[in-house]
Amino acid sequence: MNERKSIERPYLLFLGDAHDHLAAKTARGIVDWRRDWCLGQVRLEGCNASAGVDDVTVAEAAKQGARTLIIGVANRGGIIPDHWQDTLSEALDLGMDLASGLHMRLSDIPVLRDKAAAKGATLFDVRHPHREFPLGSGAKRAGKRLLTVGSDASVGKMYTTLAIEQELKARGVSADFRATGQTGIFIAGDGVSVDAVVSDFVSGATEWLSPANAPDHWDLIEGQGSLFHPSFAGVTLGLIHGAQPDAVVLCHEPSRTHMRGLPDWPLPDLKECLAANLSAARLTNPNVFCAGVAVNTSALDDAAAASVLSEISDAMELPCVDPMRGGVAAIVDRLL
Amino acid sequence: MNERKSIERPYLLFLGDAHDHLAAKTARGIVDWRRDWCLGQVRLEGCNASAGVDDVTVAEAAKQGARTLIIGVANRGGIIPDHWQDTLSEALDLGMDLASGLHMRLSDIPVLRDKAAAKGATLFDVRHPHREFPLGSGAKRAGKRLLTVGSDASVGKMYTTLAIEQELKARGVSADFRATGQTGIFIAGDGVSVDAVVSDFVSGATEWLSPANAPDHWDLIEGQGSLFHPSFAGVTLGLIHGAQPDAVVLCHEPSRTHMRGLPDWPLPDLKECLAANLSAARLTNPNVFCAGVAVNTSALDDAAAASVLSEISDAMELPCVDPMRGGVAAIVDRLL
Repeated sequence: MNERKSIERPYLLFLGDAHDHLAAKTARGIVDWRRDWCLGQVRLEGCNASAGVDDVTVAEAAKQGARTLIIGVANRGGIIPDHWQDTLSEALDLGMDLASGLHMRLSDIPVLRDKAAAKGATLFDVRHPHREFPLGSGAKRAGKRLLTVGSDASVGKMYTTLAIEQELKARGVSADFRATGQTGIFIAGDGVSVDAVVSDFVSGATEWLSPANAPDHWDLIEGQGSLFHPSFAGVTLGLIHGAQPDAVVLCHEPSRTHMRGLPDWPLPDLKECLAANLSAARLTNPNVFCAGVAVNTSALDDAAAASVLSEISDAMELPCVDPMRGGVAAIVDRLL
Repeated sequence: MNERKSIERPYLLFLGDAHDHLAAKTARGIVDWRRDWCLGQVRLEGCNASAGVDDVTVAEAAKQGARTLIIGVANRGGIIPDHWQDTLSEALDLGMDLASGLHMRLSDIPVLRDKAAAKGATLFDVRHPHREFPLGSGAKRAGKRLLTVGSDASVGKMYTTLAIEQELKARGVSADFRATGQTGIFIAGDGVSVDAVVSDFVSGATEWLSPANAPDHWDLIEGQGSLFHPSFAGVTLGLIHGAQPDAVVLCHEPSRTHMRGLPDWPLPDLKECLAANLSAARLTNPNVFCAGVAVNTSALDDAAAASVLSEISDAMELPCVDPMRGGVAAIVDRLL
């Protein structure tokens, strides 16, 4: 699928001086879904987060065979500060590749770029597209595709998509998670950050990411943004048209009081939201249907969560689950 | 509005060896709307097109005060071939800036880049964003805005927008054309090629392009693509949300048999198309309305054109005009 090699594993997770758990969300996402790939974590002084794996030094990790140091921490501005460079350099010295999803590029730091070149190591700046994409053609292609869509940005689309991959594979169905954001790319080993693609080529990049496949194969495409988020809806629409989905799963976070980052913006009504997504998706797949609703109830207790899931299921007349609480079996039942 | 200086005029239009009239569409668009800015045209051997202005040499144009040589010709691949470079170099030598809307950058050609630096000249590669943009905020801003939308790409959105600017100015209304594509940028002297902006920032770039203004001022924003074109709809949606339009004008080309570049794709029903555009626009401006329909009837004779305009007007219950045939007075009447 990719001219660039996939990110090699096992991974060494670099948490830097993450000031809280949220800052280490990327590392924790990788551990949640690919714990077997993670050899350990490196934390600097002042780090207030853990990814829940063993602390190791770069030297220990290298001895145990770590292939790639992944920057699993985010910060304001997406920069790679100077005081991380000793650790990153040491990883290169000991034969590892480096991978980052930050805005600032590893390959723009001369000492890392030169050392990587000298060692024959690869610097993966996964936030930035590594190739050019064609325009979307809209042409029908073989294989089946599912896309997660959302009432808002950051409502659990990646986790839902990964849970569906896990459930399909457990049932022996051929399926691949297709990553469209930084954390997803570390979890897949490959993918495209679609929000960093030039706007004319978003649908084309999505077509490229989920190409023709066997008729019974499912590509499970990580959604981004929301048709109802005024900052990102264009990205979402390009993704919908390029994915050409046979099925969508609507993702939602019921305790959210406004659109992410926009205090004055209410969330859309879920029925209206689903109708808009299906209407948009019909342009490239007239037979698209909704396989269910995935709700992130992590802010609720068991009883409140059960009640919300049941209410939404009744209102939408669709299976409604929290992938992290009860799994996605009901959605996959409807999908198949 | 712009940290970069505007493109200075008068212009010298470079038609190169354009193999037909369509290849010189950019030059002809500039002449159609800004004839006073155009000092003349330079054509190379083999040129089969004319922009309808006097042929001049680069030296004559320089003597007459030409400030910028505009590459007014397009070709497959958007390249600047070697055999154009003598002419472009001469323009720099004689004190002009250069401006191009092609994919290949003037500033990537060493001889031009070095000469421009030595002469203090500017190379405008208007297809490529010249700055970074913020994310769209969706925040309401003062002033009025109109956006042209379309049943397809290339159905006359730029011409319609410019005709509305002309009509508003003739009535003494304060208005500015805001360019979102290459030819439009030459006509405005400034703007952003939104389809070349990173997808996450399309709505933000559009907000930046049409900032808060006096309450009775109209920004007239050139639309791009179509919500019903599977290659470009994401760009269109970002533009709609960023423009926050008070009014849209729907543009259409009635003789087109399929979506541009996609022989298997029928055009949308006009009512469905307008409804989808208004629905999308309501996210950032709940009071948006349609000021009318602009139809490109250039392929039809007078009687057929009149009949099409009348049919569409009846069906849509909206003013329906061909801006290049009868003007846009009926649309502007409804707008004001």
